Amino acid sequence: MYKIGYLGPKGTFAYDAAITYTNGVACELMEFPEISELIYAVDSGKVEKALVPIENALEGTVNITADMLVHEVNVKIYGEVVLPIRHYLLARPDVDLKDVELVLSHPQALAQCRKYLYNNLKGIEQRSVTSTAAAAREVASSKSPWAAIANKKAGEIFGLKILSENVQDHHTNSTRFVVLSKTDAEHTGHDKTSIAFTVANSPGSLLQALKLFDDKQINLTKIESRPMKTMLGQYMFLVEFDGHAKDDLIREVLDKLFYNSKFFVFLGSYPKHKDANGGSP
Amino acid sequence: MYKIGYLGPKGTFAYDAAITYTNGVACELMEFPEISELIYAVDSGKVEKALVPIENALEGTVNITADMLVHEVNVKIYGEVVLPIRHYLLARPDVDLKDVELVLSHPQALAQCRKYLYNNLKGIEQRSVTSTAAAAREVASSKSPWAAIANKKAGEIFGLKILSENVQDHHTNSTRFVVLSKTDAEHTGHDKTSIAFTVANSPGSLLQALKLFDDKQINLTKIESRPMKTMLGQYMFLVEFDGHAKDDLIREVLDKLFYNSKFFVFLGSYPKHKDANGGSP
Repeated sequence: MYKIGYLGPKGTFAYDAAITYTNGVACELMEFPEISELIYAVDSGKVEKALVPIENALEGTVNITADMLVHEVNVKIYGEVVLPIRHYLLARPDVDLKDVELVLSHPQALAQCRKYLYNNLKGIEQRSVTSTAAAAREVASSKSPWAAIANKKAGEIFGLKILSENVQDHHTNSTRFVVLSKTDAEHTGHDKTSIAFTVANSPGSLLQALKLFDDKQINLTKIESRPMKTMLGQYMFLVEFDGHAKDDLIREVLDKLFYNSKFFVFLGSYPKHKDANGGSP
Repeated sequence: MYKIGYLGPKGTFAYDAAITYTNGVACELMEFPEISELIYAVDSGKVEKALVPIENALEGTVNITADMLVHEVNVKIYGEVVLPIRHYLLARPDVDLKDVELVLSHPQALAQCRKYLYNNLKGIEQRSVTSTAAAAREVASSKSPWAAIANKKAGEIFGLKILSENVQDHHTNSTRFVVLSKTDAEHTGHDKTSIAFTVANSPGSLLQALKLFDDKQINLTKIESRPMKTMLGQYMFLVEFDGHAKDDLIREVLDKLFYNSKFFVFLGSYPKHKDANGGSP
């Protein structure tokens, strides 16, 4: 049976994203403990597809996902799912907020709740674990007065009570997951394309690259820079725009950009999330 | 006496950066356990200056530093220090690599050594703590077979032995620290300027902003995007370029950009690090 991987255990936001994506279609959901293992699993064919977080509205790019797609594997972005993200502070039923000695969560979730933690649990130790649901599981099985930051469903699965709700630093928060695959997605007419490239280290070279899109009135939906990992000050640009690489107009721009770039990676053309303009809850 | 804050304890890379920056000038170095507290300490006048990491060659922007400078405090970037970064895997003298049950470090350091950890300590739990030196201190005081990722000096301070050296994922690795202050730095003629701004959500608006610099042949040394934290797909741009806000040419461009931007923050003009082109070790 068709296998889809996600960052487990059950109760993570990635699990929600996988359920949303599969939408009742028969498939086997396989859980993985870490993002890197999950991405390698798609690359090696262990799973057909995988749901991985790539960007959060508060914390920005999930570096490991972006960097692995560009530098380490040969997999394509096949689709995307945008989920609203609400965090809950969860503990065993006998633990109150004033008793909490340690807060566990995924590092991105801790970062998304930084101000709440500073204002309400200042000085309390924080521990990063591999996922929000893994944090809830650890809190449930510990005998110490610990708390997890995770979603409501993880609290239900692991029998935790809610100490505080909506603890993320901004009321609106969402995460974009991408569907990874070894195969290309079909052209639907409502697509976007993701690429990565570097430009020459000379004044105006990024401007020239962006002008290629502007000249054809192609709408850039994202531009992000990431270090090239060679030396400080060397960046690549992650760019996303409306259109599919099979569209004549897009292919023409990509050809020019490829020709002008020192480094170029095509990350995929894929259908846009239906409500990909922010998905605020 | 003049107080300079750094992310402690002694033995962090930030401590090295503080020593490099003060270069023998009499001052009191004050350690802080977290980046956020350190930045608030400059803002409230508890310290005159602070050294905080803002960017690493492998992992990119230190989000908390960039986001706090833009959104939360009114402090200026006053200077910069670029340090080569080499990570060591450290343990108590009686612990061997095969015994290690837990690896502790700052989350940025863990991320900078991700491939080493995947290849050599796969499946071993990782724990994020507030600094690399705090990790070394915890490993030294623990009775369990733990290891820390930290610098050589932290190993010496806390009596740890080296299990493995240069464990970062690329041989060349460096971190850029900025000096924060409530006051503006003097014009030296060898300066750079940092700003943050948003552009209108319409095609070509980033291009127009970059064109302001290109028209005056101002060299952009960095362009980075960060989420605005309002909704997914809303970004601000962190831009750095050669020149001081007191230069007529720069002031002219900044005035235009300020006028055309929905959101604009001046982060400071300050002397460039002498070897700020990468600082590869």
